[in-house]
Amino acid sequence: MFGYFYKKIIMSTKSDSLLDVIFTRKSVRSYTGEVVSKQDLDMLLKAAMAAPSGRNQQPWAFIAVTNPDTLKQLADGLPFAKMLPAAGSGIIICGYSVPSTRSGGKDLWEQDCSAATENILLAAEAMGLGAVWTAVHPYPDRQDFIRNMLGIPSHIYPFSLIPVGYPTGAEQPKEKYDPGIVHWEQW
Amino acid sequence: MFGYFYKKIIMSTKSDSLLDVIFTRKSVRSYTGEVVSKQDLDMLLKAAMAAPSGRNQQPWAFIAVTNPDTLKQLADGLPFAKMLPAAGSGIIICGYSVPSTRSGGKDLWEQDCSAATENILLAAEAMGLGAVWTAVHPYPDRQDFIRNMLGIPSHIYPFSLIPVGYPTGAEQPKEKYDPGIVHWEQW
Repeated sequence: MFGYFYKKIIMSTKSDSLLDVIFTRKSVRSYTGEVVSKQDLDMLLKAAMAAPSGRNQQPWAFIAVTNPDTLKQLADGLPFAKMLPAAGSGIIICGYSVPSTRSGGKDLWEQDCSAATENILLAAEAMGLGAVWTAVHPYPDRQDFIRNMLGIPSHIYPFSLIPVGYPTGAEQPKEKYDPGIVHWEQW
Repeated sequence: MFGYFYKKIIMSTKSDSLLDVIFTRKSVRSYTGEVVSKQDLDMLLKAAMAAPSGRNQQPWAFIAVTNPDTLKQLADGLPFAKMLPAAGSGIIICGYSVPSTRSGGKDLWEQDCSAATENILLAAEAMGLGAVWTAVHPYPDRQDFIRNMLGIPSHIYPFSLIPVGYPTGAEQPKEKYDPGIVHWEQW
């Protein structure tokens, strides 16, 4: 209902500077039920597509789901997405293989889709939304279920499913900084 | 030489709001040669560790390289990192397998390291630095070269190498938004 820029004004006590958002982002699994606007979902998708990709191939596609029946079916059929109906919307990031002789035929779509997923999580945090990365790849059973349900072609791989909603505030960021895993100049 | 907060003040015409940074981030391969401070590299590493990871396993470790001789050797031995000496520093993100019975033994470290890599790229852009994701995984020849050179244990996989420096401004962000690859409710 409320768009991103209105949120920015009423939430002016919260910083949306990049580093602040990186450090306050958390995996949100508890949602108020307030509906996320289509404009806000569009903004998340724009953020996803701004991610880097190997050789700029952008080997991704997106499905945004807001239909309550579809969300319930996804929640019922997947082991990790029970909060989808409460979130009220979900984004499925898909990837596909782009064969290239230039790098020995190696594929980077999983890395590219990961960067796009992380961009969505950070954008959601900045916009006052809550989201969480649930893994679909590399689990063929989850991929097949989503592919069959949503009519995804066989050469397209559902990669991640991100429930998106308004956070209740139950989740807080974790402190994960560990200087002991940083090596300088040499391992 | 100049720390992040000083940069913030003198670069006040440039927004560091999360969405602005996501949309202005670009892959920087041209550097001025100005030295990046250890504090700034530390901030990038903190940003990396704030990324989400599957089951919060944080299966990552980091090597920060600033020694000119090491940077030159890396540039000479790798096909894609010729700009490392000009950048003046580089971060190698490493990952490792954390077997888990909970998800059928599947591994998520590549996705986790990708999220950490993307956080570094975004943080660099926000701090006025330039960076670029160069892929090390899944290329065994690149991984072996880096592992041998830097003394990385055999169970640790060099995943990505990120040159970090001050951008000349030669690179500009690409417009990659494509509404045609968004599907609503169903593929």
